Amino acid sequence: MRYELYYWPEIQGRGEFIRLALEEAGVDYVDVARTKGGMSRMMRLMEAGSQPPFAPPLLKAGKLVIAQAAMILFYLGGRHGLAPKDEAGRLWVHQCQLTLADFLVEIHDTHHPIASGLYYEDQKPEARRRAANFRADRLPKFLGYFDGILTRNPRGWLAGARLSYADLSLFQVVEGLAYAFPKAMARSKSRYPLIHALHDRVAVRPHIAAYLASERRIPLNEQGIFRHYPELDT
Amino acid sequence: MRYELYYWPEIQGRGEFIRLALEEAGVDYVDVARTKGGMSRMMRLMEAGSQPPFAPPLLKAGKLVIAQAAMILFYLGGRHGLAPKDEAGRLWVHQCQLTLADFLVEIHDTHHPIASGLYYEDQKPEARRRAANFRADRLPKFLGYFDGILTRNPRGWLAGARLSYADLSLFQVVEGLAYAFPKAMARSKSRYPLIHALHDRVAVRPHIAAYLASERRIPLNEQGIFRHYPELDT
Repeated sequence: MRYELYYWPEIQGRGEFIRLALEEAGVDYVDVARTKGGMSRMMRLMEAGSQPPFAPPLLKAGKLVIAQAAMILFYLGGRHGLAPKDEAGRLWVHQCQLTLADFLVEIHDTHHPIASGLYYEDQKPEARRRAANFRADRLPKFLGYFDGILTRNPRGWLAGARLSYADLSLFQVVEGLAYAFPKAMARSKSRYPLIHALHDRVAVRPHIAAYLASERRIPLNEQGIFRHYPELDT
Repeated sequence: MRYELYYWPEIQGRGEFIRLALEEAGVDYVDVARTKGGMSRMMRLMEAGSQPPFAPPLLKAGKLVIAQAAMILFYLGGRHGLAPKDEAGRLWVHQCQLTLADFLVEIHDTHHPIASGLYYEDQKPEARRRAANFRADRLPKFLGYFDGILTRNPRGWLAGARLSYADLSLFQVVEGLAYAFPKAMARSKSRYPLIHALHDRVAVRPHIAAYLASERRIPLNEQGIFRHYPELDT
């Protein structure tokens, strides 16, 4: 079976967390909205059936269509060796992913504190205030939390002895934050070395390294979750 | 086995979604932080073990300690008849819950658009702007989404023929919104009648009605997610 991923074709966004898991697992998938006519197929799927999704990303697995990035990863992780087999382990990895999802909302809202439907340019003073608080308060809280988990696990991953989809997601968050807040993240290296070490170990895994070097990896830009506005990183 | 719920003792907050599920299921539980010495027990549990949670609510089920409200409900729902038995149904209800969790963040941020660590009084102009956009844009989008699901299911629930934990959560969201935004919600009744009808049917279920009338139900107040600031509901 070939998985179908549906997500906005010009950003990494929340779809990237799914792409990284599919790439690491080495499974067959198509990134539908980046193919010819794919956007219309995504729009039709958004309206179809009695249980429509609220928003992309969507994963089609045979007849099943599911949404919510963390839940898609929960589904894929159990099937492709990207999560522990026991219930406590599976729940723990899902819990890490949901905490990363909470973090992502806060990262996004540094540039959109008033409304996701308005331009950044329409909420710049508020974004400066929110980003200053984010850098001082929330960024250290989340980075410290994940670094603290890694401190407790000598194997170097969020769960047990093997990489899980939550480790791939933590890699992506560190990657995105380094793009959006290069100054703040450079300062964080000595304080939270373990998340940076995890990032570097994920980046050189064969499937991930090949993916990052490919055209399938959309460059980070100022349309997605992680945006580089220098005035928010002073 | 008696479940132990750990959550801030003076607000409904995210813990309320768990309380409603435990009450509807009629299972034995203790709301630990509301008992004598309970806050210290919660603080110790936050620091314990190799897999500490990021934030309350926490559920202790035997030796298992889990966090993230949506995941706790996923865990409880499967065990106490508050979710469908088949995989597609279980995923769908979890997906609804995760969308409600996204909605909750946006509801909260109407009064805290700049920083959760600052007082409302320190971000009032920004809150007015965010709340105006919320009422015009995001509130109808989320209410319309859930009303649309109910339109597609003649049985009146988010999933299939029986109430699930996501229905209890939708009840709670409608209840909280009616407290925080009474004017906007009064106007929404004719436009989204099915979510209001679901709310009313949940409120009179025997276990829920008894709970709502009891002292276990903490009144809504201006410390939680749903706060009534008249200036945000004009």
